[in-house]
Amino acid sequence: MEVLSTNHAHGGTQGVYSHQSATTGTDMTFSVFVPDHAPGAKLPVLWFLSGLTCTHANVTEKGEFRAACAAHGIIFVAPDTSPRGDDVADDGDYDFGKGAGFYVDATQAPWAKHFRMRSYIEQELPALIGAEFPADLARQGITGHSMGGHGALTIGLRNPGTFRSVSAFAPIVSPLNCPWGERALTGYLGADQAAWREYDACALIEDGARLPALLVDQGEADNFLHEQLKTGLLVMACRKAGIPATIRMQPGYDHSYYFISSFLAEHVAWHAARLNG
Amino acid sequence: MEVLSTNHAHGGTQGVYSHQSATTGTDMTFSVFVPDHAPGAKLPVLWFLSGLTCTHANVTEKGEFRAACAAHGIIFVAPDTSPRGDDVADDGDYDFGKGAGFYVDATQAPWAKHFRMRSYIEQELPALIGAEFPADLARQGITGHSMGGHGALTIGLRNPGTFRSVSAFAPIVSPLNCPWGERALTGYLGADQAAWREYDACALIEDGARLPALLVDQGEADNFLHEQLKTGLLVMACRKAGIPATIRMQPGYDHSYYFISSFLAEHVAWHAARLNG
Repeated sequence: MEVLSTNHAHGGTQGVYSHQSATTGTDMTFSVFVPDHAPGAKLPVLWFLSGLTCTHANVTEKGEFRAACAAHGIIFVAPDTSPRGDDVADDGDYDFGKGAGFYVDATQAPWAKHFRMRSYIEQELPALIGAEFPADLARQGITGHSMGGHGALTIGLRNPGTFRSVSAFAPIVSPLNCPWGERALTGYLGADQAAWREYDACALIEDGARLPALLVDQGEADNFLHEQLKTGLLVMACRKAGIPATIRMQPGYDHSYYFISSFLAEHVAWHAARLNG
Repeated sequence: MEVLSTNHAHGGTQGVYSHQSATTGTDMTFSVFVPDHAPGAKLPVLWFLSGLTCTHANVTEKGEFRAACAAHGIIFVAPDTSPRGDDVADDGDYDFGKGAGFYVDATQAPWAKHFRMRSYIEQELPALIGAEFPADLARQGITGHSMGGHGALTIGLRNPGTFRSVSAFAPIVSPLNCPWGERALTGYLGADQAAWREYDACALIEDGARLPALLVDQGEADNFLHEQLKTGLLVMACRKAGIPATIRMQPGYDHSYYFISSFLAEHVAWHAARLNG
């Protein structure tokens, strides 16, 4: 692991790091905030998965999470959204290819070679975080925004033993039922939609996956709400499955980091209550 | 005034605006955060003057001030650091010309034509803010970072009837005594250092200007501390003048927005105590 930068912030250390990923076959960059803590202490970890076009940097610079993480003693990890590099396949559009990994393990050429963000987030990066930082991997929570909200929901639903707490900001709740999802999952996984279900929060719930609780914030003024995000499908899936979900429609808020930063401290506190308990 | 963008944030509105400035003879861009407030209410204003190379955008995106401004009912205004435009004189270096207005009214060619940031911040922009936003101009505070800390200190010291509260982050405390200041003030004001004194916080205090209180945060790991910022000169000037200054050396913090964002909410609360009293 290479240290790209560290800055003292809110009494802790905000770092940016890179490493050679065996999973993606590329260098991967991520950021970690470690609050001030007692020597030898192990802290819970909150993962933040970012949305289309983003890297680790967006939430790191604009997320307004550090004060809350410092107050609650939470490590905050922000990975990239896809493999990067000159030899990584790409697409001209913003919603497929680089910056748009959709947290899947691709099975279709040419994507299968590097686009393995599911395994990267579920396995390789947590192991690195556990080895390099004072992280208690028995206490992990996960959240994310938009495509990253989809990532947080699906990774959380598939791994209830790993993630004690799951929340999301303006998530894509059903790639099976929106243009972003149809485009990306056709490309990464092929046309057989049966293979998509483990990458669709609503389908996972329909197929039996459960969460002990769920917190979602969704802006009512979000331009992507009706065509892409379709929060109502998640409300219905949770209701039908008996998942105690708090899904808040937030009047006036859009899809930007001004929305995320308005509520991320609340999400940190919500995760902390479940991770520090 | 033209609205470039507005985003709902922390219950209020974060906007970015531009207008044709009669003072600088250019279009000028600035940002304003207006918290949620009662209809007809007028709110105090906190000005944030940014440092070298910055625009309104740096603190607007990375400052982490909105939660505190919402909690205390404070309007937050972030101007640009210089005039901009193809016909505005510039210099190849980052510390002079565009992005480096130093909050002076330049007297030397070719700078005198557009570089009038003192009059812009002291007169034209407050009048616009008063006309276009629910701002109580009888209750204004001012802060800033680095070159903008210099701006906040000198504008505050020269205008005690306008600014009830003054604070700064890692300010240039004496342009007379550092390379950044010597370069910029020679260029904008000429070689006669007598003309510089109204643009030097320590000289203003030596010449009789006073503040009822002062809050300064300075990172001990700031690379510019010893050569450019020279906080000790301000400590001595305040002590000699009997200005009750709280000047905090913050261990581990550098010159970046990770430092500013760690303490800006505290500064907002400090100003609010003086503006809402």
